[in-house]
Amino acid sequence: MSTSPLHRYYPPSVDLPLFAENNTSVISLIGQFGFLWAAVLGIALITIRKVRPTASTSDKVAFVWMCLTGFVHLFFESHFVIHHVSLAGSQELFGQLWKEYSLSDSRYLTSDSFLVTMEAVTAFAWGPLSFLIAYTIAVQHPIRHALQLILSVGQVYGDVLYYATSLFELYFHGGEFCRPEGYYFWFYYFFFNAIWMVVGSYYAGQSVVEITRAFRVVGGLNMGKGKKGQ
Amino acid sequence: MSTSPLHRYYPPSVDLPLFAENNTSVISLIGQFGFLWAAVLGIALITIRKVRPTASTSDKVAFVWMCLTGFVHLFFESHFVIHHVSLAGSQELFGQLWKEYSLSDSRYLTSDSFLVTMEAVTAFAWGPLSFLIAYTIAVQHPIRHALQLILSVGQVYGDVLYYATSLFELYFHGGEFCRPEGYYFWFYYFFFNAIWMVVGSYYAGQSVVEITRAFRVVGGLNMGKGKKGQ
Repeated sequence: MSTSPLHRYYPPSVDLPLFAENNTSVISLIGQFGFLWAAVLGIALITIRKVRPTASTSDKVAFVWMCLTGFVHLFFESHFVIHHVSLAGSQELFGQLWKEYSLSDSRYLTSDSFLVTMEAVTAFAWGPLSFLIAYTIAVQHPIRHALQLILSVGQVYGDVLYYATSLFELYFHGGEFCRPEGYYFWFYYFFFNAIWMVVGSYYAGQSVVEITRAFRVVGGLNMGKGKKGQ
Repeated sequence: MSTSPLHRYYPPSVDLPLFAENNTSVISLIGQFGFLWAAVLGIALITIRKVRPTASTSDKVAFVWMCLTGFVHLFFESHFVIHHVSLAGSQELFGQLWKEYSLSDSRYLTSDSFLVTMEAVTAFAWGPLSFLIAYTIAVQHPIRHALQLILSVGQVYGDVLYYATSLFELYFHGGEFCRPEGYYFWFYYFFFNAIWMVVGSYYAGQSVVEITRAFRVVGGLNMGKGKKGQ
């Protein structure tokens, strides 16, 4: 019954009628993606050094990370959300990158309802929010850690559900979406998503510590001087 | 091919081999659930009045809500996570309640990978966290709003994905999981989940405002008196 062209995705039975082989090599795709990351990183670093040269190293790194994650959410992940129907045949740079990534998770080529909706929130809520947080770091706005905590919880929770849904599909329903070679599982599926688990958890933790410290200071003021609060 | 007993779930073709009709009436089930909610609410109210009688009304309401949502997450939603395989045949109170609710979303009876994993996080992370927040309200701990923001973002994001996955399944893939009567869609599916959308958003907003205010106070201190910070 399958109308699918020959492909290397898992499970081999997955039907991808629109599939077309990437016309660019993997090395070139990853190289171009790496170049974009490096460009965003460079521009972000120049920007924060110019607008807030006295910022701590920690704040400079956070500014650069927020620009980088904002770029990935708002431009790369949105590409999947907007084009999920036709992605399997795409020859655009981001389309080809998603097709390469999908060797580790073919749900990206089948309009999986969890992936489309989770990535939509990531692209269109977490993406702009990341850039807004970068701005609050640049101007030292007091809302920064509230927004950083929202973003970080969103990223980590999305990532936990991403790992958990696919592992549950594998171990409970027997649905295999990743090619068997360790390269796809460990480098694409595990490592790339782990970046957001680790960095998201780090910034969530940082915000919890900073927020708690701020309330401790305010609480101390109120204790010492009666209900001043504001 | 279906081995499923006759049932009223949607789509009518959904295969539920273990299904057994509830042996308790809907009125009685909802009445018993309502009684449990009322009991938790009453115990929480007595507790906060006893341990922190001078708390503001806002804090008393928040304490009661955190106990209520903690009870629903840790006891009711965990029941689904633990028993999802055999739920369709359950005659326990919570099992029958889930079977009744599933008339508005049959994915709860088919071990849907998003629902099992999202509810697992809700039950075992957000459940204990809700009770911990209730404790931080009782003792006025400075970590309260950081934890409240984490919980609220988790609840709202989970709810957004809950609505979004099922609506995407319906409008994109044509998967209908809710019976056609408005009662099930509007009362079970829409209204019950909307409670957590509305209250979760309210407490997220409250925490963002309070956190921003605290940093404004601390920032003002630092401006006025040099880098004192702590």
